[in-house]
Amino acid sequence: MISAIERLQQALFTGEKAGKADAALVTSEENRFYLTGFPSSAGSVLLFPEEAYFLTDFRYAEAARRVVRGCQVVCIKKMNDTLKELLQKHGARSVLAESERLSLKQARAFEKAFGEAGIAVTADDTLDETLTSLRMIKTPEEIQKLREAQKITDDAFTHILDYIKPGRTEREVALELEFFMRRQGAEGVSFEFIVVSGTNGSLCHGVPSDKPIQAGEFVTMDTGALLHGYHADMTRTVAVGHVSDEQRHAYDMVLKAQLAAIAAAKPGVLCGDVDKAARDILEAEYKGAFEHSTGHGVGVEIHEWPMFAAGNKTVARPGMVVTVEPGIYLEGKFGLRIEDMVAITETGCEDLTHSPKELIIL
Amino acid sequence: MISAIERLQQALFTGEKAGKADAALVTSEENRFYLTGFPSSAGSVLLFPEEAYFLTDFRYAEAARRVVRGCQVVCIKKMNDTLKELLQKHGARSVLAESERLSLKQARAFEKAFGEAGIAVTADDTLDETLTSLRMIKTPEEIQKLREAQKITDDAFTHILDYIKPGRTEREVALELEFFMRRQGAEGVSFEFIVVSGTNGSLCHGVPSDKPIQAGEFVTMDTGALLHGYHADMTRTVAVGHVSDEQRHAYDMVLKAQLAAIAAAKPGVLCGDVDKAARDILEAEYKGAFEHSTGHGVGVEIHEWPMFAAGNKTVARPGMVVTVEPGIYLEGKFGLRIEDMVAITETGCEDLTHSPKELIIL
Repeated sequence: MISAIERLQQALFTGEKAGKADAALVTSEENRFYLTGFPSSAGSVLLFPEEAYFLTDFRYAEAARRVVRGCQVVCIKKMNDTLKELLQKHGARSVLAESERLSLKQARAFEKAFGEAGIAVTADDTLDETLTSLRMIKTPEEIQKLREAQKITDDAFTHILDYIKPGRTEREVALELEFFMRRQGAEGVSFEFIVVSGTNGSLCHGVPSDKPIQAGEFVTMDTGALLHGYHADMTRTVAVGHVSDEQRHAYDMVLKAQLAAIAAAKPGVLCGDVDKAARDILEAEYKGAFEHSTGHGVGVEIHEWPMFAAGNKTVARPGMVVTVEPGIYLEGKFGLRIEDMVAITETGCEDLTHSPKELIIL
Repeated sequence: MISAIERLQQALFTGEKAGKADAALVTSEENRFYLTGFPSSAGSVLLFPEEAYFLTDFRYAEAARRVVRGCQVVCIKKMNDTLKELLQKHGARSVLAESERLSLKQARAFEKAFGEAGIAVTADDTLDETLTSLRMIKTPEEIQKLREAQKITDDAFTHILDYIKPGRTEREVALELEFFMRRQGAEGVSFEFIVVSGTNGSLCHGVPSDKPIQAGEFVTMDTGALLHGYHADMTRTVAVGHVSDEQRHAYDMVLKAQLAAIAAAKPGVLCGDVDKAARDILEAEYKGAFEHSTGHGVGVEIHEWPMFAAGNKTVARPGMVVTVEPGIYLEGKFGLRIEDMVAITETGCEDLTHSPKELIIL
C-alpha cells in the first residue's frame, strides 16, 4: 500500500488534475495528520510530483523523522521562508493551497511570501476536494485503528450496563462512559457524549442533564472513543425496569430499519439508497419521526464523507467507513437510536460494532 | 456595565476607527461567544453603529433570546442571504470581517454574496485587533467566572494530594485531576493537562506518561477547569517522600521569582517588567533554565493577550487576567513551575489562585 502522501501526489499530479499547479501545500491539522499519521499542532506538508516534505518545528521534528513515511522531514524556524526556498528549489511557479481550512490571514501571508518569488497561490477547492475524496477510502491500517477505537467503545457499553440504574443522572452516565474509555487508553472522546432519557430522548442532539433516569424510560447513549487519532461512533438505547408495548414496537422498527440499511450497504450502491432502505421502513409507520440522515463517514474527523443521506449520489466503495444510525423521535414521549459503524468491503460490509442490539431491559 | 456588543460598537464606530466601515461581522466561535455570552457552534454577530444582530439557527435561537443582551436574535435559514438583507436594510456599503479566524472559502462566499449588492468586505486586521484589545480587559462578571473555574481547580489540587503516592503513574494523576473537575461540574478542561515527574519535569510541555512516580521526585501538575466558557490555569509542583537540598533551593527560588512577579503586577507597569521581575531572580543563578515567558492572558481562550513576556510594551491595566508561571527546567535532573492567575486591580492585583505554594512533601 502506498502512503497517503503518495496517493495525494498521484491524485494531484497525474491524470485529469495534472498541470493545475506545480506543487501543493497542506496546512490544516486534520489533513496534515491524515497525510503524515503524525499528530502535530504546527507544520505543513509540501508536495511536488517527485518529492514531498513535512515541515515542522523543533518540538516535533525528531519524533516525526521516526514515524512519517513518504516524505522528508524538515525542521523549520521560519515556515514561510522555508516553503518559499523549497518552491524555488523545485522551480515551482504555482502552488495549490487549501481554502476551507486556511485562514484569510494565512492565505495573504502565503501570497505575499511566495508572490515575491513569482509563485502563484491557487486556493480554489481542488486540494480540499481531492483530500476529501482520498480520505473517504480508508486503508486497512485506518480501518484497524477504527476497530480498536470501537473496541473500547464496545467495552464501555458493557461496563455501563452495570452502572445504569434508576436515580443515576444522564450526566453521571455520560461521565462514567467517558472516564471508562479514558482509563482504557482512549486519547479522548470522539465528541461530547449524548446521554438522554425519557422525554429528553426525543432531542436527537440533546445534552446530558441532571435529570435522574427512571424506570420505564429509554436511555439513549451516543458515544465513541478517540484512539490513534481515529473516531469511533456508536449509539445504543437501553430500557430501565420495563417498557411499554409502544416502546418495544418502536425499538423493533428502528432495529429492523438499521439492519435493512446495513444489508443494503455494499459496493456499487448509491449512498442515498442505503438511507432509503432505513427510511422506507420508518416512514411507513412513523412519518416525520426520523428527520436526520442515516449515516456519515468517520475517520480522522467525526463527520467525513460520504453521507448515507436521502438522494446522495455517491457510489459506495470498499474502504468507506460510515455510520448507520436510524432513530425515532416522538416529542413528549420518547426517542431511540441504534448506530453501528460499517466498513464497505468487496462484497458487502463489515460491521465494526459488536455491542448487542436486541433490546436490553436493565 | 455596557455589554460586550456595545463596547465593540463604541470601539469600531466612534473615535479613531470611525468611518472604516459601516458594519462589522463577527463569525468565529470564540469571538461570537465573547460578544453574546452564548455558546453556539454556528452563527454570526452583525453590528451597525446603532443596532446589532445575533444570527443563529433554529437549534439556538430560542435559548439565545433568553440570554443574549444588547442585540436582536434572528433565527436564520440561509446565513449569507439574511446578512445581505440586513446590510442592505441599514444602507451599509462596507462591512468589516475577521481575518485570522475566517476561512478563505468563507471570505470568498461573503465577497460574492455581498458584492452583488455593492457592499465591500474589509477583512484587514481591524476587527481582530479591536476584539483582542477588548478581550484583554475583563468585566467583573468575567473575572467572577474565572474565579469559579479556579475554585474547581484549587479543589482538584487539594483532592490530588491524597491520591499521589509512589507507584501512581503521571497519566493516572492527570486523569484523576480531570475526572475530579468534571465531577465538580467543569464543562471540560482548559487544555490537555501536563503531569510530569522526576527527569520528565524538565519538559515544560511534557505529556503525562505511564512512568510511575517515585520517592524523591518532583511532580509538576499544570491543570485548569473550563467553566461557563472560561479557562482556569494553575501549576503546582509537589515532592514525594523527600527532596534534595538542590531541589529545595530551586523550589525556593521559583517561589521567590513568582512572588516578585505578582508583586510587580499592577496597573501602569509594562507587561515586560512583570516578566523581568521573575526572570532577574532566576537568571542570576539558573541561567538558561527558564526560557518561556512568565505569563499569558486567559479568558474565553486559554492563551490570550497580554503576555508577561520579555520586552513586552503593553501597559498593565485593571481587568487584565494573566498567569504568573516562572519555572526552572534542568535537563536530566528535574523541573518545577508555580503558576497562579492574577487579575490586575486599581491598586495592584488579585490572586485568583488559592492553593498553597509552600513546598508540599507527600
